[in-house]
Amino acid sequence: MIDFPEIQDLIKPNDSKIVMLVVDGLGGLYHPDYRKTELEYANIPEIDNLAKQSDCGLTLPVLPGITPGSGPGHLSLFGYDPIKYTIGRGILEAIGISLSLSSSDIAARGNLCTIDGQTGLIIDRRAGRINSDEAKLIIEKLDGLKYKDVEIEVHHVREHRFVLLLKGDGLGNNVTGTDPEIEGKAPMDSIANDTDSVLTSECINYFNKEIRTILADRKIANMALLRGFSKIPNYPDISRKYQMKCAAIAAYPMYKGLAKLIGMSVLDAGNSFESEIETLHNNYDKFDFFFLHYKPADAAGEDGDFKQKVKSLEYLDGVLADILSVNPDTFILAGDHSTPTIMASHSWHPVPFLINSKLTSGAGIQKFTENQCRGGSIGNIHATHLMLFALAHSGRLNKFGP
Amino acid sequence: MIDFPEIQDLIKPNDSKIVMLVVDGLGGLYHPDYRKTELEYANIPEIDNLAKQSDCGLTLPVLPGITPGSGPGHLSLFGYDPIKYTIGRGILEAIGISLSLSSSDIAARGNLCTIDGQTGLIIDRRAGRINSDEAKLIIEKLDGLKYKDVEIEVHHVREHRFVLLLKGDGLGNNVTGTDPEIEGKAPMDSIANDTDSVLTSECINYFNKEIRTILADRKIANMALLRGFSKIPNYPDISRKYQMKCAAIAAYPMYKGLAKLIGMSVLDAGNSFESEIETLHNNYDKFDFFFLHYKPADAAGEDGDFKQKVKSLEYLDGVLADILSVNPDTFILAGDHSTPTIMASHSWHPVPFLINSKLTSGAGIQKFTENQCRGGSIGNIHATHLMLFALAHSGRLNKFGP
Repeated sequence: MIDFPEIQDLIKPNDSKIVMLVVDGLGGLYHPDYRKTELEYANIPEIDNLAKQSDCGLTLPVLPGITPGSGPGHLSLFGYDPIKYTIGRGILEAIGISLSLSSSDIAARGNLCTIDGQTGLIIDRRAGRINSDEAKLIIEKLDGLKYKDVEIEVHHVREHRFVLLLKGDGLGNNVTGTDPEIEGKAPMDSIANDTDSVLTSECINYFNKEIRTILADRKIANMALLRGFSKIPNYPDISRKYQMKCAAIAAYPMYKGLAKLIGMSVLDAGNSFESEIETLHNNYDKFDFFFLHYKPADAAGEDGDFKQKVKSLEYLDGVLADILSVNPDTFILAGDHSTPTIMASHSWHPVPFLINSKLTSGAGIQKFTENQCRGGSIGNIHATHLMLFALAHSGRLNKFGP
Repeated sequence: MIDFPEIQDLIKPNDSKIVMLVVDGLGGLYHPDYRKTELEYANIPEIDNLAKQSDCGLTLPVLPGITPGSGPGHLSLFGYDPIKYTIGRGILEAIGISLSLSSSDIAARGNLCTIDGQTGLIIDRRAGRINSDEAKLIIEKLDGLKYKDVEIEVHHVREHRFVLLLKGDGLGNNVTGTDPEIEGKAPMDSIANDTDSVLTSECINYFNKEIRTILADRKIANMALLRGFSKIPNYPDISRKYQMKCAAIAAYPMYKGLAKLIGMSVLDAGNSFESEIETLHNNYDKFDFFFLHYKPADAAGEDGDFKQKVKSLEYLDGVLADILSVNPDTFILAGDHSTPTIMASHSWHPVPFLINSKLTSGAGIQKFTENQCRGGSIGNIHATHLMLFALAHSGRLNKFGP
């Protein structure tokens, strides 16, 4: 379940190219209305045909029964044990809106909430999911406070959600949040759990006091709750770890930010999968490994829209030839987690993948589906092991031991 | 292979109900006389039909090739890594005969043995497996000794076996036993391996000296051997660990005792599986998770009686509908270990299981057998991960990571 500790010692760089296409939320489940899974239902002849000539299997993102967020799901695919390399919620939220972060910054996830003006108790933890335009104006009023030498920035995300950034020196992140995570209680004071984090908790409690005053004349969205105080984690650099230049091609900020966290070069990939593919073509000479991110399958899955998820897979099938025309030595199609439409959410189910290289010739798979991949030539593996296959198929791994 | 370290952080309690039916010794092996395994031979249409609509697989109780006792087998199913959470032999033996233990007690497993009256060397480590009635009378003579302030209790188990209990303060369990585990040697003195255990070793050596005198006029069963000195382990409470009220429904004392060790509420379940099912019905409103124990499959397996094991499985099939009529959100049928009749003992072979919930729809399993479960939608997992599935299917786990 963990990344191979001595992997660095085995790395043998060469000039092979690897493309890893990550289909967000790829895996699905049997849907009673359609009597099939999304992959089974989809008309995806190009992908099926590739699967017939590939090594196929299922990746377990974390542990059986554990549903990963996007962070752990992707880290795992890149060979980072997601239980060891955790990401703070504040940091991921900040990454998701493209904030530029320095290693000393503290980020937290914030919610505008509604408290009872008299008792101070929380009535609604999400301020009625206040609309984004109104929330943005409120958030702007909270921005720009300063405590001692610490700048307190507030950035709107969407609806009631925002990111709090503390910028300054001497800020530890070992503090408690202010969100009791239940209504009917008052927002809490932040407590520092170590001496390095005292200044951080002071900033938070100062912010709490000030915003209560700033928002005092409001009936709803008159307070804020903070949690997930975190710093940029210090992860091993992927390009150094595998001794290959790694590029991320993604349209959504969060995936770009995640890739940046582990040291990938984040390419300007536009806002569509079409422009992502173009970016792959235009930069193919400059890197060894390409993480190509395809979002629509997850979005449709989260919406519980079976037909839309099927459509997103069929669209991908239509552009597969264009992706493969760069002719990578190793091509991987994988997913960060499953997003079954019947659940309308991420799930714990293992995710189909295929690896294609000159060393694969297929092993009986007729269609790229959850059930058939389980019986593929690789079968069930932990997602952190997928990268080992990528390296192996590309001749980038020496023999282990004499 | 380990329980998920941050599992507590992901738990999201709700009012779902989980029933885990543990069929003791469930798994079997191909028998040359019947040309099938016990599960393959058995006529179990209800179980097979349920398997067709379930996620199926095999659980590995400890490690490949490792045959678990009932303790590790069950702990693993409840999500306790059996290599980390060990149970002393003395404690398990004491639990098995329903002794009430306090946290300061030391328990050991004892054997009546036969020594040569002249040389003092062990002739028979089990005193010819002396019959229980005779042994009971001998054991009674050894009970009630006292050393300093420590009460020395002796409780008969079966045949030559007994439990020694030391009750008092300041008793460590880091002592060596007196059983050389080979004939032709003399019973050994106990040695304390730390200062906290000196009093314990003194008690043991006092007991050894006294019983030799008490039994001096006997030819056989004229001495005793002691091993497995242990205390009640301090395990995480299962109800707290998973934030659900857990109940154990079992007829045999050892399984009740095991369940109590990890904090389950042990219900009064009578002496038959019929009364166990009645107990499930009568208490269904009061708990979230039910461990329902079915013993006969293991007993028949241990006796090497293929037809009897088949019969026990067929009996279970007949009462399955009655169990399922409580309509649990998640139903699991699993086993603590395999007990193949051709081996007439526990074995290391992975054990079939099925999970049924509204999220399962089957994946090609036609019959609930060892071979088919291996190709089930889950396939091979470690038994400690089964509980993660139970929680996931019941909506009791939050997403891991942002």
